[in-house]
Amino acid sequence: MERGLNATREANFADWYQAVVREAELAETSPVRGSMIIKPWGYGIWELIQQELDRLIKATGHQNAYFPLFVPLSFFAKEASHVEGFAKEMAVVTHHRLAMIDGELKPDPSAVLEEPLVVRPTSETIIGDAFSRWIQSYRDLPLLINQWANVVRWEMRTRLFLRTSEFLWQEGHTAHADQEDAMRETLTILELYRDFSERVLAMPVIAGEKPENERFPGADATYSIEAMMQDGRALQAGTSHYLGTSFAAAQNIRFQSQTGELELCHTTSWGVSTRLIGGVIMTHGDDDGLRLPPAIAPRQIVIVPILRDRPEDADVLEYADALAKALSGLSAFGWPVRALVDRKPGRSADKRWDWVRRGPPLIVEVGPRDASGGQVTFMRRDRLWGENGRVASQSMAREAFIAGAPALLEQIQQSLYDEAKAMLDANIRTDIGSFDQLAAYYGPGVEDEDAAQAFKGWVRCAWSRPSGAALDAVTERLKSLRLTIRNAPMQQSKTLGPCLFTGEPGVEEILIARAY
Amino acid sequence: MERGLNATREANFADWYQAVVREAELAETSPVRGSMIIKPWGYGIWELIQQELDRLIKATGHQNAYFPLFVPLSFFAKEASHVEGFAKEMAVVTHHRLAMIDGELKPDPSAVLEEPLVVRPTSETIIGDAFSRWIQSYRDLPLLINQWANVVRWEMRTRLFLRTSEFLWQEGHTAHADQEDAMRETLTILELYRDFSERVLAMPVIAGEKPENERFPGADATYSIEAMMQDGRALQAGTSHYLGTSFAAAQNIRFQSQTGELELCHTTSWGVSTRLIGGVIMTHGDDDGLRLPPAIAPRQIVIVPILRDRPEDADVLEYADALAKALSGLSAFGWPVRALVDRKPGRSADKRWDWVRRGPPLIVEVGPRDASGGQVTFMRRDRLWGENGRVASQSMAREAFIAGAPALLEQIQQSLYDEAKAMLDANIRTDIGSFDQLAAYYGPGVEDEDAAQAFKGWVRCAWSRPSGAALDAVTERLKSLRLTIRNAPMQQSKTLGPCLFTGEPGVEEILIARAY
Repeated sequence: MERGLNATREANFADWYQAVVREAELAETSPVRGSMIIKPWGYGIWELIQQELDRLIKATGHQNAYFPLFVPLSFFAKEASHVEGFAKEMAVVTHHRLAMIDGELKPDPSAVLEEPLVVRPTSETIIGDAFSRWIQSYRDLPLLINQWANVVRWEMRTRLFLRTSEFLWQEGHTAHADQEDAMRETLTILELYRDFSERVLAMPVIAGEKPENERFPGADATYSIEAMMQDGRALQAGTSHYLGTSFAAAQNIRFQSQTGELELCHTTSWGVSTRLIGGVIMTHGDDDGLRLPPAIAPRQIVIVPILRDRPEDADVLEYADALAKALSGLSAFGWPVRALVDRKPGRSADKRWDWVRRGPPLIVEVGPRDASGGQVTFMRRDRLWGENGRVASQSMAREAFIAGAPALLEQIQQSLYDEAKAMLDANIRTDIGSFDQLAAYYGPGVEDEDAAQAFKGWVRCAWSRPSGAALDAVTERLKSLRLTIRNAPMQQSKTLGPCLFTGEPGVEEILIARAY
Repeated sequence: MERGLNATREANFADWYQAVVREAELAETSPVRGSMIIKPWGYGIWELIQQELDRLIKATGHQNAYFPLFVPLSFFAKEASHVEGFAKEMAVVTHHRLAMIDGELKPDPSAVLEEPLVVRPTSETIIGDAFSRWIQSYRDLPLLINQWANVVRWEMRTRLFLRTSEFLWQEGHTAHADQEDAMRETLTILELYRDFSERVLAMPVIAGEKPENERFPGADATYSIEAMMQDGRALQAGTSHYLGTSFAAAQNIRFQSQTGELELCHTTSWGVSTRLIGGVIMTHGDDDGLRLPPAIAPRQIVIVPILRDRPEDADVLEYADALAKALSGLSAFGWPVRALVDRKPGRSADKRWDWVRRGPPLIVEVGPRDASGGQVTFMRRDRLWGENGRVASQSMAREAFIAGAPALLEQIQQSLYDEAKAMLDANIRTDIGSFDQLAAYYGPGVEDEDAAQAFKGWVRCAWSRPSGAALDAVTERLKSLRLTIRNAPMQQSKTLGPCLFTGEPGVEEILIARAY
């Protein structure tokens, strides 16, 4: 039986992931270690993510702006003394010219920068500096800014979309007059990310608050959305931080209040990145390749004309073009339907499988009989295989297919979400009440690569919310099982059992999982 | 008489430009020398430029992708040996970590990169490298790729939008099977840029071919669009290059032809940047600030409610909101009308002038009498002053204003274009037949800053299209008058006079101007 990939999720999830990225032509490694080339099909997904997320960000009152790629080193010196443990793996620009020296092109020793420049790992400091100039009075608040940008964090071990030295993201930065307003913003964005992830990416998530030792350095509170990948591991898909007044104090972001006093702003920051594409792959992909939620499929309906170098080819092409045109006049998810006729030369069977790997929701094959009979033969990518073990191809009258296409796309979107949601719900254990039980569930495979790869879901349990050294001790115990605390879900159960770690009365529920 | 700015074009064009950029809140210099912060109003213009240009680029068959920010130094070494005179003013990354050394944060000496990385000044080499892997056969051609990205070229003397070390742009890179197809692409894009500039930016341009010594290094032909700024200087607003096979040879971009032979691709590249915003300012700005073509105005209709801390304020706000809602339901230029109610606290007279400086095409002021009488009082930003020397405010019934708003916006777009076109047409001299006449027109002010600032238009004249050393000599003579050859317009006159430089029979017409 022909399949889309030579790798399966079951055999080796990491290899399968790489195969999907490669075979769906989403991205590839570049000659620069740690950086990726996002190919047109992958970038098309990112553009649709941007389009819809940008709409939501603007609808909640934010404006986009653009800040410099380079940050003076001194800005980090300020930051480093302020925030202990700030990551220092960053790309540093030290020269502004190349010169030919002894026949070799080199950084010109006579063009050393007075102050080295850091390629932004985030724009926190450079935007904070601008805020300190832009904000004078309470009338300037809230200041709600978002930026779409590339950022660089030097990474030793990289994986396309999930962890690369350069990646694309949006970073929101806002300033407010008081804690209440800043906290409202932080949670508005958390909810925006949850809604976006579930509705647009069809990727169910659990929103919650990170434990204190997992906060963004210097933040007062960090929230995340966490998605379950098909290998059971958690993917942090977005974060929203309430930064209190500490960043404002370090960067002198102050305003004159209505009573005339000079006060520190309360600030927030939040972001999602091209990592979301990794999440989509590991949520919806199958052993034939990618399955794309229609809302972010660069092409929602791909029409493959079956050509045979015969006179009737012209009719087939004309029929395919007319079909694509009719579909493009419709709309789904509030945007025009994205249909494509694949006119590239090549065998139609090869083209079918190329598209199966790339994952558009509907693949239509048009042959001479369809053209003459006014029929459409198509496959749903989310339900590729029939019960007979063959590709499940359906036929339908052209008009009926066109009329039903938007609803069918919305149905596929829902179906992908439902499938992922069922998987998430079925794999969160709530019956584990002690650390020993936890170790029995996840272990002892920690020393054994194969066993460690075996599917394990998440554990949802109560804890007593330890702080400081007691929390670090908990984190260390979990680490011995390769586990992490993902977050304390916003939706808590009404009754809580005892703390998994101490047996004391539980204070809140948390999610425990292996994670990307 | 109150005016929007404290600077005029006549007194000092450069100061006036800076005042518009600052007072219209378009951009500001950043703490990083040579880089700019693009503020929300300026970035909103860029987003609209991107939106429409991206639509046109995709409609002509191109796909977007994303390539790494960093380019290995060796790629430039290859390029430098290939292309003499390749600009070497580039930002060079040499370290991948910061470390605290003697209490100071510094590039970590133990984290020196084996090979320095250059921050892309253009993605020619890194995309060419990808093309050499992506292209195998004639079936893969044409390959039509576009990228939206930030690029860095170290600049000593910078001016916001016009010349900054970091800027935003799109760069198209395409590969073709033969010269004919590549040349068609080059000219298709040139025409796309011309149309975009004139229709969307309301900025008339002259499209033409650059002389050989102004080509992109290594290109076989370079085309540009040139716009006339209000000080008479030319702004190169976009370029399209036919690169022949030399880049393909340097980067090994080959394909197997239909006859089975391995052949070099013919490649092109083309781009426009945030420089376009500088062009818009200098084409349409006046002594009150910016005047935005409606197609790229982040807000096309700004409604300023006149509030007096009285009970009727609520009615005024409600009326303003309903008006904005009705307008937002309409469409102009194929997109929903962008209306805004400015609810920020502040005096309405101050707000009027803030908006006059920023330049939305229509500014509506709504007071209690408008609200109760169902009227709309508004100003056209392109015709701010009445004959009586006062701001020209008009009143109209609400329904009539709403019904006519899209047509009015399109009329303002046309009017701004017509105004700029008339200025361009009136200031190209075709009556200058010798170099002495040229010198008399432009000189002798070259030594005198004030006289050199005086308005001078362009000269269109015939030349004999010299090559090599003869061309360099012409260039030097023009340089003594601070002049440059802009291009040889695509639309040539039927009859040509003698060459301005030699008196020999003219071969084609060229444009001569001072330039940015």
